[in-house]
Amino acid sequence: MTKLTEIPGSIVAPRGFRASGVFCDIKRLGTGKGSEKDHKRDLALIVSDVPATVAGMFTTNQTCAAPVKICLQRVGRGRAQAIVANSGNANACTGKQGIKDALEMARFTERALSLPAGLALVGSTGRIGLALPMDNLRSGIIEAAVELGNTPGHAGQAMEAIMTSDTRPKQVAIEFEHGGQSARLGGICKGAGMIQPGMSLSGRRPAAAPLHATMLCFITTDAAIQPRALRAALEQAVANSFNRISVDGDMSTNDTVLVLANGLSSPRFDVRSSRSPQFGVFQAALSHLCLQLAKMIVRDGEGVSRFVTVRVKGARSFAQADAAARAVANSALVKTSWHGGDPNWGRIIAALGSSPAAIVEQKVDIGYSAPGSRQVLWSLRRGQPTRATFPELCAAARPNEFDLHIHLNIGRAEALFYAADLTESYVQFNKGDVSDPRSLGG
Amino acid sequence: MTKLTEIPGSIVAPRGFRASGVFCDIKRLGTGKGSEKDHKRDLALIVSDVPATVAGMFTTNQTCAAPVKICLQRVGRGRAQAIVANSGNANACTGKQGIKDALEMARFTERALSLPAGLALVGSTGRIGLALPMDNLRSGIIEAAVELGNTPGHAGQAMEAIMTSDTRPKQVAIEFEHGGQSARLGGICKGAGMIQPGMSLSGRRPAAAPLHATMLCFITTDAAIQPRALRAALEQAVANSFNRISVDGDMSTNDTVLVLANGLSSPRFDVRSSRSPQFGVFQAALSHLCLQLAKMIVRDGEGVSRFVTVRVKGARSFAQADAAARAVANSALVKTSWHGGDPNWGRIIAALGSSPAAIVEQKVDIGYSAPGSRQVLWSLRRGQPTRATFPELCAAARPNEFDLHIHLNIGRAEALFYAADLTESYVQFNKGDVSDPRSLGG
Repeated sequence: MTKLTEIPGSIVAPRGFRASGVFCDIKRLGTGKGSEKDHKRDLALIVSDVPATVAGMFTTNQTCAAPVKICLQRVGRGRAQAIVANSGNANACTGKQGIKDALEMARFTERALSLPAGLALVGSTGRIGLALPMDNLRSGIIEAAVELGNTPGHAGQAMEAIMTSDTRPKQVAIEFEHGGQSARLGGICKGAGMIQPGMSLSGRRPAAAPLHATMLCFITTDAAIQPRALRAALEQAVANSFNRISVDGDMSTNDTVLVLANGLSSPRFDVRSSRSPQFGVFQAALSHLCLQLAKMIVRDGEGVSRFVTVRVKGARSFAQADAAARAVANSALVKTSWHGGDPNWGRIIAALGSSPAAIVEQKVDIGYSAPGSRQVLWSLRRGQPTRATFPELCAAARPNEFDLHIHLNIGRAEALFYAADLTESYVQFNKGDVSDPRSLGG
Repeated sequence: MTKLTEIPGSIVAPRGFRASGVFCDIKRLGTGKGSEKDHKRDLALIVSDVPATVAGMFTTNQTCAAPVKICLQRVGRGRAQAIVANSGNANACTGKQGIKDALEMARFTERALSLPAGLALVGSTGRIGLALPMDNLRSGIIEAAVELGNTPGHAGQAMEAIMTSDTRPKQVAIEFEHGGQSARLGGICKGAGMIQPGMSLSGRRPAAAPLHATMLCFITTDAAIQPRALRAALEQAVANSFNRISVDGDMSTNDTVLVLANGLSSPRFDVRSSRSPQFGVFQAALSHLCLQLAKMIVRDGEGVSRFVTVRVKGARSFAQADAAARAVANSALVKTSWHGGDPNWGRIIAALGSSPAAIVEQKVDIGYSAPGSRQVLWSLRRGQPTRATFPELCAAARPNEFDLHIHLNIGRAEALFYAADLTESYVQFNKGDVSDPRSLGG
């Protein structure tokens, strides 16, 4: 067991990284328009002092956005030094112009930072179907390049710049060591709506892939690691974190996770290959960081009032355990019952029965516990209501966070899934404001 | 083209059928408790004067309710004479006791009506996981048998007795004729929540089945038809109606459609086989009736304020057209945008892109029309925003009912789907009232 220590500084905690965030009016509010909230920072820059190893995972949505297409091309080379990202405009469904703009965004960043060509990556989140305001973006990049720094405040500004409907910043940094070597990992992310990521390294959907976030996550580390090992570590970490969450079951066109590893830790933490002991330590740290950030996304999802960890056990295969968990996590009736604090097992078993997972009604157990606790209060055992009283069950389903235990008892496979309730606030927020013509897309 | 004439009388419009609906306190409110609304009729009886040909379609939910299991056994014989159905308790997830109770409900009805054994069918809707109050039910059946009659009022009472969260009765009757023969069809149904039926004749899920209502629908006809032809006609009618609707994407444990054909029309309308011209006329009439009832279910869905017909064309296969339509119809973000009257094509294309259907972003058209109109206002053509202005598009998405046209332009297959918006009222209604211990299940 490696000790992971939480430290301040998020993405600039690892050595050799600087960040900044500025306001450049991506939404084109113009002078005097918009509330103070609309004038929040909207362009983030993250830069390593030296070229870094890179790995990325991307939405498997068939209508993936232009910045995703550019990143897919660039991360394949395994090297990058900067990430430029904007909120307010997703640069999705923008055709050839969108690709040109995303590429210009990367190239302009390289020129502003005097980097070799090809070393900048791009990310965008916001409205779909609108062209990026390139003049504003160029001014923003120049300003952001000037503002770069490595204090927690700088990281916080970059964090603010990628937020959209997020109500809270989501950032974390950790330190880990092995055999006299130590390194740091830092990450920022945004989420809130259109959240059920199904990301892959290639942007292509694996056979048994999860289906459905705009979520953006940018991770930095000063560990030294080869691209192949970094990709393997990221794929594993995302499989157990961002690809296991859902706010509303909708998959975004822009989901992106990027990791830059610059090797500047001192003493140097060197992951030579995926077979070295350092790899296990690095993997554990990256997985821990991704899971923490993923849970923050669910807790801060649009209108979310309850965070539920769905723990399915006893399925015939992982794919079936996963399908069962997602069916429950995305059922409108289950999600509204969570909102009401209602321990309604009837809706849960109906959702299970309609999922592609095999279930046998007379074998299903359903119960509640405090987060991570093994003290489960069962409402259903082998398909039969237990003696747990309704007030007892209500008390178990009332906390803002609880675990829902589902044992299918027909196999040995299990799956975890992080889910949220469905509230009036979610509907209120997303029904949009048609008095605002800028509400198209996104 | 056969002329279908709408007539009054719903399920008792066809000759030789009687109906009734009574209150027998299925929810066990006891004396003096509950509001007047809670005291609505809750037990329906529909009886043919002579044994009738029967066909049924049932939920493919793996946790199907006891009454569904009993019906599956009985409709296989092809003959039935009565349907007894209750609201307030679904008799689902009730184990062996549930099966025993559903069977007793059928047998008690046969005795009360002096029918031969095996000719009564059962239906239930309401809370999941509670045992039926058999004493109340028996009293109700005796009273309902006494109250039977063939006036529109009697049909209306049966209709009321199967309603749960429905706000309006859903009933229709039609008359049709061919070559001097004429017959009538009548139907009642209930819906409201847990609505995305995926029914089959066997209760088993076909390979490419829709996945996800409690909906109950009882249809009577005085046409003469053989069981095999009746099953074929029903399968076709349901495939294009009840299996093509969604209120909330949740599939119930109790979905049931039953048709009784007693052959008492005069002059006699005789469907000798599925190859006779009468079959085509009967099929058209049954399909028309089912579609009308299915649309009523969507329009009266819980909290529904907008009814949207999703018309997907140009897909590679029907399965893909269907998957694309369902992805749009069940996307929380698309549904909330409909609620807001927001012509947000970004969410639609994101939902399409995350569906199992193949799509090519640069080929997708998205547009709006009045219901059934060919005058489409396109918001997107070949993946590019059109010149339609935002106010124009808002005007097209503002009516309570409109058609959403999606052309994928990569094939020749098409699918229609009837969908609803997602509103604060839906959430409010379904978050439940945990101060009421009777809210468990359902």
